[in-house]
Amino acid sequence: MRKSSSRPSRSTLLNELSACQAANLLARRDISAVELVKSCLERVAGRDERVQAFTYIDADRAIEQAKSLDEGPIRGVLHGLPIGVKDLFDAAGCPASYGSSIYEGHRPMSDAVSVSMCRTAGALVLGKTVTTEFAYFSPGPTRNPHQLERTPGGSSSGSAAAVADFMVPLALGTQTAGSIIRPAAFCGVVGYKPSIGLVSRAGVKGISETLDTVGCFGRSVADVALLGSVLLGDTRLTATQGLGAPCIGLCRTSEWTLADADTQRAWAQACSSLSADAQALVDVHVPASLADLVLLQKAVMAFEMSRALHYERASRPEKLSRRLSLLLDEGQGISLETHIGDLQRTAAARRDAQDLFKTCDVLLAPSAIGEAPPAKDGTGDPVFCRAWTLLGLPCVHLPFSSGRDGLPVGLQLVGQWGQDHLLLAHAQWVFERLECSSVA
Amino acid sequence: MRKSSSRPSRSTLLNELSACQAANLLARRDISAVELVKSCLERVAGRDERVQAFTYIDADRAIEQAKSLDEGPIRGVLHGLPIGVKDLFDAAGCPASYGSSIYEGHRPMSDAVSVSMCRTAGALVLGKTVTTEFAYFSPGPTRNPHQLERTPGGSSSGSAAAVADFMVPLALGTQTAGSIIRPAAFCGVVGYKPSIGLVSRAGVKGISETLDTVGCFGRSVADVALLGSVLLGDTRLTATQGLGAPCIGLCRTSEWTLADADTQRAWAQACSSLSADAQALVDVHVPASLADLVLLQKAVMAFEMSRALHYERASRPEKLSRRLSLLLDEGQGISLETHIGDLQRTAAARRDAQDLFKTCDVLLAPSAIGEAPPAKDGTGDPVFCRAWTLLGLPCVHLPFSSGRDGLPVGLQLVGQWGQDHLLLAHAQWVFERLECSSVA
Repeated sequence: MRKSSSRPSRSTLLNELSACQAANLLARRDISAVELVKSCLERVAGRDERVQAFTYIDADRAIEQAKSLDEGPIRGVLHGLPIGVKDLFDAAGCPASYGSSIYEGHRPMSDAVSVSMCRTAGALVLGKTVTTEFAYFSPGPTRNPHQLERTPGGSSSGSAAAVADFMVPLALGTQTAGSIIRPAAFCGVVGYKPSIGLVSRAGVKGISETLDTVGCFGRSVADVALLGSVLLGDTRLTATQGLGAPCIGLCRTSEWTLADADTQRAWAQACSSLSADAQALVDVHVPASLADLVLLQKAVMAFEMSRALHYERASRPEKLSRRLSLLLDEGQGISLETHIGDLQRTAAARRDAQDLFKTCDVLLAPSAIGEAPPAKDGTGDPVFCRAWTLLGLPCVHLPFSSGRDGLPVGLQLVGQWGQDHLLLAHAQWVFERLECSSVA
Repeated sequence: MRKSSSRPSRSTLLNELSACQAANLLARRDISAVELVKSCLERVAGRDERVQAFTYIDADRAIEQAKSLDEGPIRGVLHGLPIGVKDLFDAAGCPASYGSSIYEGHRPMSDAVSVSMCRTAGALVLGKTVTTEFAYFSPGPTRNPHQLERTPGGSSSGSAAAVADFMVPLALGTQTAGSIIRPAAFCGVVGYKPSIGLVSRAGVKGISETLDTVGCFGRSVADVALLGSVLLGDTRLTATQGLGAPCIGLCRTSEWTLADADTQRAWAQACSSLSADAQALVDVHVPASLADLVLLQKAVMAFEMSRALHYERASRPEKLSRRLSLLLDEGQGISLETHIGDLQRTAAARRDAQDLFKTCDVLLAPSAIGEAPPAKDGTGDPVFCRAWTLLGLPCVHLPFSSGRDGLPVGLQLVGQWGQDHLLLAHAQWVFERLECSSVA
């Protein structure tokens, strides 16, 4: 039974609904999947020529799928929600180029596990979103929806931009250095990088077995928690209420001096607005054993990328960007003996990272140096993400402030490994307070 | 310049040469890649109707590739060597079915990294070898070349059988439970499972991110070390001489009571023949913290397989064997919370495993319960491999004895994580002594 009173008012466009709002309306059949997907497609049609978030959309197929969802039973918590899928993931029926011309025309015959899990939960793949070349630094065409001459960040450029620009409520991404948190920061959306090892990477073009992490983007903590609950297969992720005020560790990190005035201002703003309500704010200093992780992350990534892209480099070297080729050369120059030592240091650092949470529930840390830089200068620096990725800790970027040019600025919360449900609950609590402070 | 004196005598068929022998002759151009590949193809033609090791061979293409290797410069240490590739790996130009009818007709457009590394080193992919269904227990058609009514073991059934039957000198395989060591034991060849994390799994159909390990088969320790040096990218692996007598830890494992009379006899034989020459033989008891690893390995595998094969189960459930479906059901029944605990116990066990080597250089342990069971009863029990796979330790199976029915029996050596070069050197030393004892 359709209750017209439950429908959003005419002034709210369906594509602007949060994922949770839309999911509720869809589950009650108050809106149809066809209406929602058409609204998203309209947004794409109106904007994507400039934003260039998508590499592939088949509108007819998306509508057809929405129709069959409308006609069938409610399939799961994502029933009828259109999602964007980073073009590093395989999705049956869509081309997959992994951001490289080497894979032009490639059509995988199966879904990545994460895509399959989303579809089983009722999601509808609206299309593939732009990734940088093999998730490294050579940018795709995507622009920052807030200012088109700026970068959306990388490597999950299209997913972050599509969510920020209301083309889709949710999108999938991956992080190896800073490819979820950084574009989330630059585009002003919530980005969620789960604990390493909890979301299957099967069917995602891998570049580093030690670092690659599947995650997602949304416009609220509740939205990434909803999608995260499907990716992890853990309903605890959506129980984001009732934990109360967390004890927050302020972790400026060893790279703090690189944070610009905008990030420092956001930091001060967060500390000030959280100090009233948090159970405690404590300074957390990075111990010496965790100080060199940026260099370690770079070395592990270079070695493993030079292996992961061995075929592409051996068979089509002329199709690789110069920047990527240089990295692969660098990686190949690292001996296995050195890499074994690096993996041992990584394992030791992952153990030691537990100590960071001795006096707090979550860590607050910078997400990026500052606002999104000009697109011509690349996709920005992942320096504030490398260590957390190496440690495999779950991270959530919270957008709550803006910088000198009016572009989004925020901070990330970092949780303990395997405690993604607690991190998301705390992130929900923190985000509510930061957003209020921002409006005030 | 071709020295006819260096050629093997007419009585030695080229397909029976060890990989190292053939590689030396090829590097000196004493034999041609075309001659060698033709000899292997002849063996396949004569035997594979019965053994059924291969799912795919393109003889014309293999000869063509051999020709171009003969005409070009020496490409690397595997120059001109034909290898068998388990049908769980992608190899450009070959179909890949992963042992399932779901992927009938699938032709991947790129090489798995391990395949690409072999080709770059000059190897020639002779064909794809039979895997069980998605590397689990439902057997393919392959038979044990020693007795055709017996199983070759699984899941790397075709690779082990092809090497044992002199169809190829080397072949690639993977191990998630016991899929390299067990078929090596049943087929009487050397199997090498490297330390977890050292060989890229990109382009191999993954079933468990925590456990899947790429490795290989050969007919001598030196042969698997040669291929291993390419897979790991570490020339130390071929320096297998000069370490001297190792201190050997005798590790019967917690599953010892399952070893049958044949394995127990091989154990006694090994202890007796090594006691004279080894620096020391010491009993190594598995500490309590490492006692339950078989169950832990099963749980991790069930959970991760239910994720890894999510797409196949969601889209083509009718194409999965009953045995696999039951496992996937079981895995899906495990909560993420439980799995997180299992991953933490795995990490702790991997740390504790270092203690096993306090008093020895390598461990000697059973590889399998006994001789290869009848093919009608399945591919055999990986019980003696599960713990080592979970621990991520490098293992080498050494075939040196035979059982009551004249079928191969042997034992495995287990090394410290990341010390594959030492393990292989010790394995070489041990194998020489065990083979002598066997002849005596």
